Amino acid sequence: MAERYEDSYLYRLRHSAAHLLAQAVTELYPGAKLSIGPPIENGFYYDIEFPEPLREEDLPALEAKMKELAKLDQRIERSEVSREDARALILDSSIPCMGSEVAEYKLQLLDAVPEGEKISFYNQQRTDREGVQHRFLDLCRGPHVDSTKEIKAFKLMSIAGAYWRGDVKNKQLTRIYGTAFETKEELEAHLEMIEEAKRRDHRILGRELGLFMFSPRVGVGLPLWLPKGAQLRMTMIDFLNKEQMRRGYLPVVTPHLGNAKLWDVSGHTIAYKDKMFPFMVDDEKETFILKPMNCPFHIEIYRSSLRSYRDLPVRLAEMGTVYRYEQSGEVAGIMRARGFTQDDAHLFVRPDQLVEEFTLVVDLIQAVLSKLGLQNFRARVGTKDPNSDKYIGHDENWELATNAIFEACQAKGLDYEVSPGDAAFYGPKLDIVIKDALGRDWQMGTVQVDYNLPERFELEYIGEDSKPHRPIMIHRAPFGSLERMIGLLTEQYAGAFPFWLSPVQIAILPIADRHNEKAHELFVRLRDEFGYRCEVDDRRETLGKKIRDNQMQKVPYMLILGDKDIEAGTVGVRSREEGDLGAMSLEELVKSTVS
Amino acid sequence: MAERYEDSYLYRLRHSAAHLLAQAVTELYPGAKLSIGPPIENGFYYDIEFPEPLREEDLPALEAKMKELAKLDQRIERSEVSREDARALILDSSIPCMGSEVAEYKLQLLDAVPEGEKISFYNQQRTDREGVQHRFLDLCRGPHVDSTKEIKAFKLMSIAGAYWRGDVKNKQLTRIYGTAFETKEELEAHLEMIEEAKRRDHRILGRELGLFMFSPRVGVGLPLWLPKGAQLRMTMIDFLNKEQMRRGYLPVVTPHLGNAKLWDVSGHTIAYKDKMFPFMVDDEKETFILKPMNCPFHIEIYRSSLRSYRDLPVRLAEMGTVYRYEQSGEVAGIMRARGFTQDDAHLFVRPDQLVEEFTLVVDLIQAVLSKLGLQNFRARVGTKDPNSDKYIGHDENWELATNAIFEACQAKGLDYEVSPGDAAFYGPKLDIVIKDALGRDWQMGTVQVDYNLPERFELEYIGEDSKPHRPIMIHRAPFGSLERMIGLLTEQYAGAFPFWLSPVQIAILPIADRHNEKAHELFVRLRDEFGYRCEVDDRRETLGKKIRDNQMQKVPYMLILGDKDIEAGTVGVRSREEGDLGAMSLEELVKSTVS
Repeated sequence: MAERYEDSYLYRLRHSAAHLLAQAVTELYPGAKLSIGPPIENGFYYDIEFPEPLREEDLPALEAKMKELAKLDQRIERSEVSREDARALILDSSIPCMGSEVAEYKLQLLDAVPEGEKISFYNQQRTDREGVQHRFLDLCRGPHVDSTKEIKAFKLMSIAGAYWRGDVKNKQLTRIYGTAFETKEELEAHLEMIEEAKRRDHRILGRELGLFMFSPRVGVGLPLWLPKGAQLRMTMIDFLNKEQMRRGYLPVVTPHLGNAKLWDVSGHTIAYKDKMFPFMVDDEKETFILKPMNCPFHIEIYRSSLRSYRDLPVRLAEMGTVYRYEQSGEVAGIMRARGFTQDDAHLFVRPDQLVEEFTLVVDLIQAVLSKLGLQNFRARVGTKDPNSDKYIGHDENWELATNAIFEACQAKGLDYEVSPGDAAFYGPKLDIVIKDALGRDWQMGTVQVDYNLPERFELEYIGEDSKPHRPIMIHRAPFGSLERMIGLLTEQYAGAFPFWLSPVQIAILPIADRHNEKAHELFVRLRDEFGYRCEVDDRRETLGKKIRDNQMQKVPYMLILGDKDIEAGTVGVRSREEGDLGAMSLEELVKSTVS
Repeated sequence: MAERYEDSYLYRLRHSAAHLLAQAVTELYPGAKLSIGPPIENGFYYDIEFPEPLREEDLPALEAKMKELAKLDQRIERSEVSREDARALILDSSIPCMGSEVAEYKLQLLDAVPEGEKISFYNQQRTDREGVQHRFLDLCRGPHVDSTKEIKAFKLMSIAGAYWRGDVKNKQLTRIYGTAFETKEELEAHLEMIEEAKRRDHRILGRELGLFMFSPRVGVGLPLWLPKGAQLRMTMIDFLNKEQMRRGYLPVVTPHLGNAKLWDVSGHTIAYKDKMFPFMVDDEKETFILKPMNCPFHIEIYRSSLRSYRDLPVRLAEMGTVYRYEQSGEVAGIMRARGFTQDDAHLFVRPDQLVEEFTLVVDLIQAVLSKLGLQNFRARVGTKDPNSDKYIGHDENWELATNAIFEACQAKGLDYEVSPGDAAFYGPKLDIVIKDALGRDWQMGTVQVDYNLPERFELEYIGEDSKPHRPIMIHRAPFGSLERMIGLLTEQYAGAFPFWLSPVQIAILPIADRHNEKAHELFVRLRDEFGYRCEVDDRRETLGKKIRDNQMQKVPYMLILGDKDIEAGTVGVRSREEGDLGAMSLEELVKSTVS
């Protein structure tokens, strides 16, 4: 079994780096009040009250001081003391970081140590040129590394505000974030990864590439899709719609709100209220709710006509924009927004169709992810926790459904891990988890078996025996959410989308104004004859500037048009990946590159 | 000048028919209290309090009685009386329709006659076989025709509830609707037209053809689009999107709600509150509003980057689903719903671009209506009322904008009528009014010039002079609303949509089960090679039944597939309009008919 991070040398090293930071602070900023400084996932932090505001620009000097202190090979030593001695130490103003002036948070921390628990300090000290000892002492459970000399590869990253004990009513402290690794190489790799993440950040790329924007007047987590992002959406939707139509899905379109009664039946007004936008209440008449999911609407459509066993499966599909009232702190670009579009469908199936339909859904998901170039995914089957009684439905149905999922995955050669207790309360499910370009996991597509809503809405079909039977529902979304998928793809491709997805596939660059007319003719031909999405860059800029800008916009092909080209009936082709490809006729271009 | 309806013989005739109805009622239902009985647009009604409830089934007997009374050639005579004599007459129980028992409403009507105005009664009477005179007398301003004999072509249509004086706090009376014409032929034509209207009613066809549905649990005026309706929407949207992309429109997608702040700036929270759904109020934080229009979102997108005079016009287009809280009584199918999708766009233009851009919009609208087969439309230019001060903006802008509209219409050969005072308060506009298959007017597309929102949102572009200037906005929607347009087209074509619009273009009808496989092969070929929307009707029904059902579903072409066809490589083609077209190869079919 792998060592837990909390038990690792790296964890101790980062903890010691936090102490080193605190030591540097006490030397450079006398009067600074220390509070807590733990290791965290990718480094460490220390929360400190500074006598005057610390700025980002002050970090290099602090870091230099840390380097200087680290090199001194200070021994880091633990000592256990009584509660009384601890208090005396904290208030001992002969020690630079101690004394009643700066003891506010440490005293509170001491008081918070439970009775009977050991109280320990960690000590490190240096002797200056005059032979004076400078001691740094911190109330701390540890453990730490043995010497400051071990802290060789570290960096202070940023500062932020943080309330003491995370409570907004308390004083705001300054949090200094840093990171530390065992080797310089590991530190470098980590810093490069962060740079890469910034370069690929879908929020930054989204703005640079003109995909989407947010407006404070519209609201947190409510994206407005700019022309190129809207085009990208259309391309994704077109692709999925065609795939689904070929597979016998039926399109539907439903409203973005419904009477509260609908959500009473579905159970959402109770179970899901926290995630719903505030209700629309007309005191005299009725209450409406902005939809957080599409299911009840599709169910109403299923219910609108009598269904026979021969009509099933009924597969109702909708690009359904839903709204969920996420905490504004939890919102993250379009990866986690308050409004997003599910590539939703609900399959109403007979029990004997469950395996086949689930298999067909897995097949669709595989086709979709493959087309999107997302190979690095894994499947997770959420099953019932056998020791819990939170689940509804009969045991034999659960077994049938769970086995259906296993069978479907096996039939489609999809590797999966089983996650007991991860089922929904109404049935088992299959989640697609995708590792992004930076190694982070994202939950994307999902397929869920549902016995609950058919029960609540009393869904029926007439069986071969002429009696009413209850269908099973499958909820499924291969993208998961259109927004999240676009966010993921943006980071995955660092904005350089594959040709078929690119909002602008071809940019036509006339060299001078006199080539503009021909450029526009070419534009119309490429659009109308070949169906390409093109743009003419007829700005009054140099060719060099036009090429740079279109390269920044990650346009797959640039066609450069000057006198010679017009005479020869060619274009100068430049590929986003391969650079200059030389002069080609339009036919050559279409045959050899674009298609 | 055409005679006003109120001055016409037909108007008097219908008024007299209402009296004839009242006379019949007093003879068949002693104790019935009469109130008012005016002529209306397509006939007349009379509101009456019956001693016991009247049913629809009672109308034929009433109508027969009216016929009998009409034939007696009763003279209809006016007499003017004093207020005192009028009261005495109304309370005179020797006259069958009078007396204190039934005088309730007539007395109130008498009291409502202004002092000094003439008070008149109209009298008609018959003598029965025993020589007894039966007088019918009604307090009435008139005028009437001379004799009941003139009322030859009439029909009682329906009954409905109606509150006395239209006030829900008053007693509910029974309203009997009828119609009357000068000739039997005109009456027949009118009744046929009504039957046709029922046959074409988009609400009925919408259900029969599986286009859309409503669910009481979802709410009034919130349509759910069934698969065929959703397909029809997609076809319409695809068509318009392509037209717009070709014309330099840029697609955008915006949320269905926004923070109330956005609507404060736009002015909607004050000016439009009645039409907005109840607000979503999170007591502690913020208020959101479901969008009744898309403009403010497109404005936020315009504002998101610095615009130069060279960037204009910016044409932002969105199929934007909006929600308006219409009174539930005003909702009518999808012609007037609470949720509908505007084929919206906002053009941000320089003043010198206004005429050209307006002209291009008119051109687009003409292209759209022509493609939809809607020739019977007229254009109405809403201009400023010179005597009102409700308008904002400078006079020279108004003149510029109004002339721009005139110029655009003239340039595109579009006939228009001018409707002074019909401008929006923020600018003049052009409305497209379409006469439907039944001669009714519908306001569809609209183009509006707006100086107000650019002002409120402080929109700018940098002019050639490097100074900021204010753009003008054009709001425009060629369909007006996708829902209303689909409703109109459904009635226009009585559900038999043109081939390109039909949700299912081709139905494949295997004659027996053994032909199903070939039918499905044909289906895939037609879909994948030719891009047609097809269905295989492989129900276990007779061919006759399949043909009838698909004819009812108004599918443009049926392809019948049996042993002989499969052997010969042909299909039996049946056209919705022309019936059996005989056996054809697939190529012949595609060449000669479908395309």
